[in-house]
This record gives sequence, C-alpha cells and structure tokens, in this order.
Amino acid sequence: MAHIDLGVDEKEFPGITGPMRFRPETAKPLNELAEVLLRGPHSLTPGERELIAAYVSGGNECGFCCASHSAFAAAQLDGGMPLVDQVRADADAAPISAKLRALLRIAGVVRVDGRSVTPELIAAARAEGATDLEIHDTVLIAAAFCMYNRYVDGLGTLQPEDPQRYVESAHRIVEYGYTASIG
Amino acid sequence: MAHIDLGVDEKEFPGITGPMRFRPETAKPLNELAEVLLRGPHSLTPGERELIAAYVSGGNECGFCCASHSAFAAAQLDGGMPLVDQVRADADAAPISAKLRALLRIAGVVRVDGRSVTPELIAAARAEGATDLEIHDTVLIAAAFCMYNRYVDGLGTLQPEDPQRYVESAHRIVEYGYTASIG
Repeated sequence: MAHIDLGVDEKEFPGITGPMRFRPETAKPLNELAEVLLRGPHSLTPGERELIAAYVSGGNECGFCCASHSAFAAAQLDGGMPLVDQVRADADAAPISAKLRALLRIAGVVRVDGRSVTPELIAAARAEGATDLEIHDTVLIAAAFCMYNRYVDGLGTLQPEDPQRYVESAHRIVEYGYTASIG
Repeated sequence: MAHIDLGVDEKEFPGITGPMRFRPETAKPLNELAEVLLRGPHSLTPGERELIAAYVSGGNECGFCCASHSAFAAAQLDGGMPLVDQVRADADAAPISAKLRALLRIAGVVRVDGRSVTPELIAAARAEGATDLEIHDTVLIAAAFCMYNRYVDGLGTLQPEDPQRYVESAHRIVEYGYTASIG
C-alpha cells in the first residue's frame, strides 16, 4: 500500500498511475515530458528511447518503471524482450548500434551523477554519429527517469508482479501515447 | 562551455536556461512542472517549497540549481538567505516549523533513493500536521530536482559566479513565474 491515500484502487492504478490520478496538475507536465522525450519526432526511434528509459530505471532498481519501459521498448524493437534483457544485463555486448551503445554509456553516467559526464564520453558518441539533439535528449531521458523512479518508489506505490500487465500497458502506450493516460 | 552547442551565448543563458532555449519542446513541460510544484496554489508557501528545492540541489551539489533556488527561497522567506544557509547547513537545528523539518527529511531520503522512504518518516511528518498532498509534493519536488540537477550538470552548462545574477533571476521568477521564462 502506498505511503499516502491515493484515492484509487492501487491494483487498478499501480505504480505511477496512482499518484497521477491523485495529482492531475503534476501528471500533465510529467506525461507531456515523457511524450516529447520518448515518442515525439526524432532521429532515435521510440524503441531506442524506451530502451534508454528501461536501462536507467533498471540501474535505479525501480521495479515498476523498469518493467514498464522494458515492455514498451520490447514492443517497438525488432529484438523484442530478449534484446532488452541483453542490453540491461550487458549493454557493451548487446547487438545494438555503436551510437546507441555510446548514448547508453552517457545515460548510465548521468543516472549516478551528471557531473561525471566527460568530454571523452561525448566525443565517443559524436564519433559514432550522435547529434547534439540526440546527446541532449539522452541526458534528459536519463535525468527524467531519475525523477520518475524516485516518484514511484518514494511514495511506495504498488508494483504488479504479473508480466502481462506491462504488456497490456505497452499496447496502450504504443497506440495512444502518454498524454492520453490522464483525463 | 557546455558539452553540446546550445546555440546561445552561455553567459547570457547560463545553467538550465541554455538547454531550455536549445529544446523548447522539453522546456515547456519542465517549466510547467516547476510552476505547479513551486508556485501553484498550495498549503506550503512558495518560499517553503523553494527551500526544499534548494536543499535537494545542495545535497546533489548542483551549483547552478542550488544557488538559483536558494535565491528564490530567500526572496520569499522572512528569514532571507541566512535562513536558507542555516537549513542547508543543518536542517535539524534551523528555526523552521516541525512540519517543514519532517518534510525536508523525506526530501533528503528521496534524493538518494526513493525506496528508503519509511512508514516512520511519513508518520513523523503526519504527526506534525503534514497532509497527503504536502507529502506527495515533497516527494515529487525532491524527485524533480534529481532530474533538473542532472540535466544542468550532465550537459556541463555554465554556472555564473556572481551572486547578483541569482538575485536578479529571483526577482524575475517571483514576479513572472517559470512558464514565462521561455518564449
């Protein structure tokens, strides 16, 4: 049970969805940010951006966010969940592009402390073809999931154990996006 | 100099303002979130909420965010900057309400890891009169500043040394708010 009374059946509205129902005023910009970062027009595919979100959430050990964004990534990547699992277990060895690998390295550093991003990490991403916008958005996706993860866990929200729940959420997100989830 | 070309004179647009000019699509929800959390209608004053933001940013050692939100808090609290400095140095001994002290304890824990928030910390805040909304917003302010801090530092943005710059920003934020800062 969450630390505060969210005013919803937590089994119906687990993870971040409960606090978003509780406080629609903050849910609006939180969903808009996710929509722009993960699904807006971009040179990185939605699947690649969801993979960055899953990777960061896994690093922060946020069960709900990691399961959710792993499912969202799997639904939009040719490699599906086996690829997501490989990236989360060992991004250096996973069969992804050299550019995405370099961006994941930046995301992993931002997750711990933004000050640890070095010119060398940036140069390595640029050498693989990463643009300034791709680097910017990778930093902000990693930073944003440090927020979403703490929001979900700091309120002690419910994390469904049934993997099917996340697959169903993935269908909804891929079809309707983040901003449709409230109101 | 920032890690990417922000397309602005960084001395004119330091800290988070450069990336916000670079990417107005993400600046919009980022500013809207700050506006709701720090300045929207609330039982905690804007000064108290800015104090939570400054406290978390100080803990994360984000120079730009800490100096900015310390100035914004000081401009809206009777105790001014001496009180902000006291809270940042030793929140337990600072002359603030027992409720705000209990909320700062929660914020400090969320900053490190949301999973470390205990029922005891929540109960202690409730015992001092904290409402569910105040607890929710404290968790989200702390989580959000873990994002803003990493965004500012992960891109290696410029941090002005002149304290007067932050005082000028405080006048602007108190008068016009966060959503007026773009466009």
